[in-house]
Amino acid sequence: MPSKHIYLFHEGNAGLRDLLGGKGANLAEMTNIGLPVPPGFTITTEVCKEFYVGEERLPTGLFDEAKRALADIEKKAEKKFGDITDPLLLSVRSGAKFSMPGMMDTVLNLGLNDETIKGLVSATDDARFAYDAYRRFIMMFSNVVMEVPKNEYEQAFTELKKRLGAKKDTDVGAPDLKALCEEFKALTKLRTGQDFPQNALQQLEAAIEAVFRSWNAERAILYRRVENISDDIGTAVNVQAMVFGNRGDSSGTGVAFTRDPANGENVLYGEYLMNAQGEDVVAGVRTPADIQELSDNHPKIYQQLNDIAQRLEMHYQDMQDIEFTIENGRLFILQCRVGKRTKTAAVKIAVDMVNEGLITKEEVILHRITPSHLERAIHPHFIEKPKEQILATGMNAGPGAATGKIVFTSKKAVEIHDANPGAPIILVREETSPDDLAGMLASKGVLTSRGGRTSHAALVARQFGIPTICGCSALQIDDKTGTMTIGEKLLCEGDWISIDGSSGVVYSGNLETKPATEMGETAALMQWADSFRKLKIRANADTPDQAAEAVRLGAEGIGLCRTEHMFLGDRVPLVQKLILADNETDRNAALDMLLPLQREDFEGIFRVMGNRPTTIRLIDPPLHEFLPNETELLVEVTRLECTEPRSPKLSELRQMLAAVRTMHEANPMLGLRGCRLSFILPGIVQMQVTAIISAACQVKKEGIDVIPEIMIPLISHVNELKWVKDRLEPTAQRIMQEEGLAIDYSFGTMIETPRAALTAREIAAEASFFSFGTNDLTQMTFGISRDDAGSFLPQYLNEAILPDDPTESIDQAGVGRLIKLCIDDAREVKPDLKLGICGEHGGDPRSIAFCHAVGMEYVSCSPKRLPIARYAAAQAALMDKDD
Amino acid sequence: MPSKHIYLFHEGNAGLRDLLGGKGANLAEMTNIGLPVPPGFTITTEVCKEFYVGEERLPTGLFDEAKRALADIEKKAEKKFGDITDPLLLSVRSGAKFSMPGMMDTVLNLGLNDETIKGLVSATDDARFAYDAYRRFIMMFSNVVMEVPKNEYEQAFTELKKRLGAKKDTDVGAPDLKALCEEFKALTKLRTGQDFPQNALQQLEAAIEAVFRSWNAERAILYRRVENISDDIGTAVNVQAMVFGNRGDSSGTGVAFTRDPANGENVLYGEYLMNAQGEDVVAGVRTPADIQELSDNHPKIYQQLNDIAQRLEMHYQDMQDIEFTIENGRLFILQCRVGKRTKTAAVKIAVDMVNEGLITKEEVILHRITPSHLERAIHPHFIEKPKEQILATGMNAGPGAATGKIVFTSKKAVEIHDANPGAPIILVREETSPDDLAGMLASKGVLTSRGGRTSHAALVARQFGIPTICGCSALQIDDKTGTMTIGEKLLCEGDWISIDGSSGVVYSGNLETKPATEMGETAALMQWADSFRKLKIRANADTPDQAAEAVRLGAEGIGLCRTEHMFLGDRVPLVQKLILADNETDRNAALDMLLPLQREDFEGIFRVMGNRPTTIRLIDPPLHEFLPNETELLVEVTRLECTEPRSPKLSELRQMLAAVRTMHEANPMLGLRGCRLSFILPGIVQMQVTAIISAACQVKKEGIDVIPEIMIPLISHVNELKWVKDRLEPTAQRIMQEEGLAIDYSFGTMIETPRAALTAREIAAEASFFSFGTNDLTQMTFGISRDDAGSFLPQYLNEAILPDDPTESIDQAGVGRLIKLCIDDAREVKPDLKLGICGEHGGDPRSIAFCHAVGMEYVSCSPKRLPIARYAAAQAALMDKDD
Repeated sequence: MPSKHIYLFHEGNAGLRDLLGGKGANLAEMTNIGLPVPPGFTITTEVCKEFYVGEERLPTGLFDEAKRALADIEKKAEKKFGDITDPLLLSVRSGAKFSMPGMMDTVLNLGLNDETIKGLVSATDDARFAYDAYRRFIMMFSNVVMEVPKNEYEQAFTELKKRLGAKKDTDVGAPDLKALCEEFKALTKLRTGQDFPQNALQQLEAAIEAVFRSWNAERAILYRRVENISDDIGTAVNVQAMVFGNRGDSSGTGVAFTRDPANGENVLYGEYLMNAQGEDVVAGVRTPADIQELSDNHPKIYQQLNDIAQRLEMHYQDMQDIEFTIENGRLFILQCRVGKRTKTAAVKIAVDMVNEGLITKEEVILHRITPSHLERAIHPHFIEKPKEQILATGMNAGPGAATGKIVFTSKKAVEIHDANPGAPIILVREETSPDDLAGMLASKGVLTSRGGRTSHAALVARQFGIPTICGCSALQIDDKTGTMTIGEKLLCEGDWISIDGSSGVVYSGNLETKPATEMGETAALMQWADSFRKLKIRANADTPDQAAEAVRLGAEGIGLCRTEHMFLGDRVPLVQKLILADNETDRNAALDMLLPLQREDFEGIFRVMGNRPTTIRLIDPPLHEFLPNETELLVEVTRLECTEPRSPKLSELRQMLAAVRTMHEANPMLGLRGCRLSFILPGIVQMQVTAIISAACQVKKEGIDVIPEIMIPLISHVNELKWVKDRLEPTAQRIMQEEGLAIDYSFGTMIETPRAALTAREIAAEASFFSFGTNDLTQMTFGISRDDAGSFLPQYLNEAILPDDPTESIDQAGVGRLIKLCIDDAREVKPDLKLGICGEHGGDPRSIAFCHAVGMEYVSCSPKRLPIARYAAAQAALMDKDD
Repeated sequence: MPSKHIYLFHEGNAGLRDLLGGKGANLAEMTNIGLPVPPGFTITTEVCKEFYVGEERLPTGLFDEAKRALADIEKKAEKKFGDITDPLLLSVRSGAKFSMPGMMDTVLNLGLNDETIKGLVSATDDARFAYDAYRRFIMMFSNVVMEVPKNEYEQAFTELKKRLGAKKDTDVGAPDLKALCEEFKALTKLRTGQDFPQNALQQLEAAIEAVFRSWNAERAILYRRVENISDDIGTAVNVQAMVFGNRGDSSGTGVAFTRDPANGENVLYGEYLMNAQGEDVVAGVRTPADIQELSDNHPKIYQQLNDIAQRLEMHYQDMQDIEFTIENGRLFILQCRVGKRTKTAAVKIAVDMVNEGLITKEEVILHRITPSHLERAIHPHFIEKPKEQILATGMNAGPGAATGKIVFTSKKAVEIHDANPGAPIILVREETSPDDLAGMLASKGVLTSRGGRTSHAALVARQFGIPTICGCSALQIDDKTGTMTIGEKLLCEGDWISIDGSSGVVYSGNLETKPATEMGETAALMQWADSFRKLKIRANADTPDQAAEAVRLGAEGIGLCRTEHMFLGDRVPLVQKLILADNETDRNAALDMLLPLQREDFEGIFRVMGNRPTTIRLIDPPLHEFLPNETELLVEVTRLECTEPRSPKLSELRQMLAAVRTMHEANPMLGLRGCRLSFILPGIVQMQVTAIISAACQVKKEGIDVIPEIMIPLISHVNELKWVKDRLEPTAQRIMQEEGLAIDYSFGTMIETPRAALTAREIAAEASFFSFGTNDLTQMTFGISRDDAGSFLPQYLNEAILPDDPTESIDQAGVGRLIKLCIDDAREVKPDLKLGICGEHGGDPRSIAFCHAVGMEYVSCSPKRLPIARYAAAQAALMDKDD
């Protein structure tokens, strides 16, 4: 054997987790800082690897090394292993680098046999305790090492108790337990053909092998797969002197957290049980007491425990989860590890620890608090999530929880809302279109059977903070009857459902919701984050209200103001007039009516934003989005043709149908939209630029110097940008001249087609800024449509065809490469080009880290995501420093 | 003045076209090889540039230099400029690097005035000739230099003739012409307030300036814009001694081509007119004689001309277009240039010249014959294209000309064709879908109002060689009445139209068509091309017939066999059964029935292809393409609901409608298709691979070693390819094992999403070959859908927003960059990866040059394009060598 395979506890330390496993490393660390840890040693994970390279046997010489280490335990414990007067008993436990609770095997009380048991009886003067320990050991050893099913022993014990009329285990006395031990050994012999081993060393060797073997137990393999733990790292084995919490009323066992893991308060938290072993606590037969009671009943031990807790926290600089045992009034620490905690507690603990001077702000942001901790503070969530109420699962498209009564049409939702504002409505649709905006805003949550995380419904949902689940394909909606079925279950309009937009799960009934908490506790965190981050954070906002929310949540500008949302609502008839006009006069009349409305929109936004830059995207979507639905029109026309062929409405509808059909597109995403509209209906963007610059002038007169950044969308060739810009510049100049004012405006473009990224050198020369429209860029780079991915993307994610959902987090290998290439080229031509991102990815922490790394100036996200984005930007900046 | 600004003819040469213009350079060259060129000099294009940098005046000193050059002309001509006894007369002509016929000005007979005219009369002893020359000069000079409209002079001459009762110009005698000259001068004085200049040198200076000025005449600027000639290159000015073809019966003028420009025959070709000037020939008053008559009437001059023609051809190594004048029996050459010729002639001349040893094969392929020369030989074309019959213009989607009667539905087209095979039908549709395949095949040509060059109609058209025009948006089709309107014009079913799929023009009526000529003349060319090219040429072919045509036209393999075409026709019901099956049993039953049919398809193709590699793409299109049209179904269901609500057909249709709606996609191009289908309906590709490998085994048993390359489409992440391949490999292996045969098959992928190109390193590791699907790659890179581009792409091309149609020729800056990046990365990982292209671009010469340059192994195109592709590949190879 080439190197050291066994570490006595005092030879290891917390840094050796790879080699000693998490438990072993911490036992070593605690031993070294002088805590009362029962003596022991750790067989390294390297041995586990050798074990599996060979024929699942311990490597030659290993057990000799173990025997030498055992001698050290014996010395420290002042007992001998296999001693027939006062035997040392051992525990043999697994312990991998990452915690795999309960997945591998453990053998306790090892070293007992028909001789040493007598020693234990006399040494403890407690025959009942001793035989209880022996029967547990025989069962555990027979099960773990000799592979006899445990329930056979349990059954025998149950029968014994029945026979004796014993209610609890403790009602069975020593003689009966002794007889039970004999019965157990006979059972083992019966099942395995072998005698129960009486040699203590033989027991030890077999137990070590068995624990190594349990690394590859089926459940352990499965657990590692789920938790993404490599099969190659192996487990260590910890051999440690037993201490007993069940040796009477001055013995006990318990678990303590150095702070309250539920709310983060800085008090010792936990529970304990006197005269009990760990497994008694787990079995839940007796109710443990609150750790504070220990302070009343055993103040010295409590004090000792509390001191240790504080020492451990100081030492590990994090809240600890401690297992302890009291044996005859003497406290032993059996394990410590970083304590699990709620997200709320995590934030409080981290902030407190900074204030206590225990850790730095950087440490908190880099390692302690993840953006997902903040999610909880930002969105409402269900207090309980009963599994039996789960109806189906879709895509978590708009985070937060909502509960309400089912409504199947936007019209109905608006009616209910108007009659009773605040009524709990969940809008359920096959998919949503811009027509549904009012209905969505009237609802508490939205559920669709089609579309993915970047579908229309999802985009609107996140923009307006509406909890939403998309692409829930198990849903079958029947508009006509006003019902939907999920599997066998039929739901009608008005039925309650609850949707968790953060997880994508749909529940039946009305679940209790905890509202979004105010930032409060996290305010300090956000302040620190702002002091570290390099990226500026903007918001996607289309209205003065949204802009105001954005500013409140820390936006330093608007990264995307979608002007088409300004064309909806009661302006739709005007917009339709504009689109359907067959002559210049009618078209201009419609534009003239839209101009003052749009100007007002911009004035409102500018007043809110002040001198923060505001990126306004000129009209982008295909025009047919503003027209009635083709299919519905067709049905109506066909119906009228059959029933009222002379209806005057028919010819009107036919005309509309003809217009809608002319605009029909096979793939609207790749059709007539974005800057392409400027070539067909140049009046729209002229009107928009007029509105932007006049609004800016008006607001400037009010004393506010606004910074409008006018964004021309869907460029794929520099000439498109040039052509459109060359026609809009004079308009902007003219208005400024008329008003006698200078506005600090600029023209730029969205990078959303792969070609724009590939020809950034040319395009940069014509733009003042680039904003990466990563929604479209991702769709085109992958060739995946936002609305149609529902049929295969879930399977792709399940089967790990795609490691992550690229609509959620920037696909760095593909889309990210394109972005990097674009930035490098663009900066070569124009080093001061302003670069940002305005796709949904702007609110995703991993994507934000990417944006930081490639040198963007800002990210922009929906207002609700601002805290997350600010925080993630700080992480990125600190990570960068860390390198 | 810094450098030489004027070149005497003997000082220049043909290499100085930039400096001396085309005409000047050739006059110099001819002078130097000793041809009888009237003496003269050229003022360089540099002077033109200086002229425009300054205030449109000749640079200082220039005219002094001109006077020195003039002295040289005087010496050679043995006459003096301004001499009152026998004056030297000059022509002053423009001459830019590129010919701009008639766009700039010319002044002839310069040097005449009231004194020198007397000398001309006496020296020529022909007063009528002299005064005729004078009146022409006054008119031309007044017009060009003094800017008096020409028609005022022409009107005065017309009135004179009327007064005299003269029918022809020559009926007017010397005294009347002399009086006319006086009238002309008076007119000039009246219009300009200036006397007509009498100083010959002053005339010369003013004429030179005027010719330079004409470089920026409106029509010249427009011409340059249309012909893509830079405004910066400027024109030269040629000053040359006049010679006269109108000095009697031993004088004359003419034009000769060294070979017949119509058919390419190697004979002197042209026409001449005795006692005439060039403009008389142009005016068309007298009919010129065939040049062969010159050999009878003036054998010596003919002989001299023929000798010169041969010398020029030898010298320039190309067919020449020669202008000559005979003055009193003496031959002068006034101009020579490379002669324009028909495409047929071009091919014959080039091949003949190689056979004559005049030029090399390389020269022909690199510089003489372009692929467009071959187009004519490959496709039928209209003999005449009357402008007045033009109805509209669309996209030239499938080359070739067709004429026939309008039919609006595929069904009708098939009916007519079945009743009368070969009936001339033009199928007119809004757009075509796979359903229309039979109708398209029954038609002579196809015309659609929607869709672009890569729409379904266009792809099928080119595949099957059907002349097709797409996206003819002026068309308004009314299915119900069976009519269509183009502007004001109404056309009914059965009306004749003619479509030119090469140019995109739609004509009314039945134009006469010249069928595609057989290769004949071009056979030699093709043979040479094959000997030079490095690229292999494959064809896109889906059936044994197409494969046979491909092999006949030189295909070295199939680059794309689209298996979905095998799912059409009478197999549609089976395919629908497969798609609509709601359980494994039904689905497998449908697959079992498709398997032998598909196997047969492949056997047929393999037998034709022999051991040429055959790339077979697994099913690619969205499944709804095989189902009935959603809109039509919806109309039918709605109608039945109104009229026959109890019809049993209704429930059946409703069921189908529900199925079709479930499969509805917002952007099918980016939806469930390609390899994504394998995750949803894995049975289809399993059946296809089974069919491919069993067919290969069957054909192998017949003694043919086939090479199937199985192509998995629409990969955007390497894991997709891996997943699908890992499930197909065992199928292939199993069949080979069952058959006891080894087939040389391989798996590869299409690179058609930008992400596939961007992650080529990963994907290359899993593929044996890459085939660039540049149709989809272009669409996704630009964000432009093939079917929807019609609404803006034509305008993009008209306004030069896009320099070229990227669906026609690979966009090298964007898509090309992606391809190059992909190839570089892929080769790094797998140097022997087979690389080809199977998009429509594979038949486009410029794209082929690109494919050669980036190191692809082959290009694949539709069978009809094979000759073009083979030729273009040779050009690319030679160009490469040339570098």
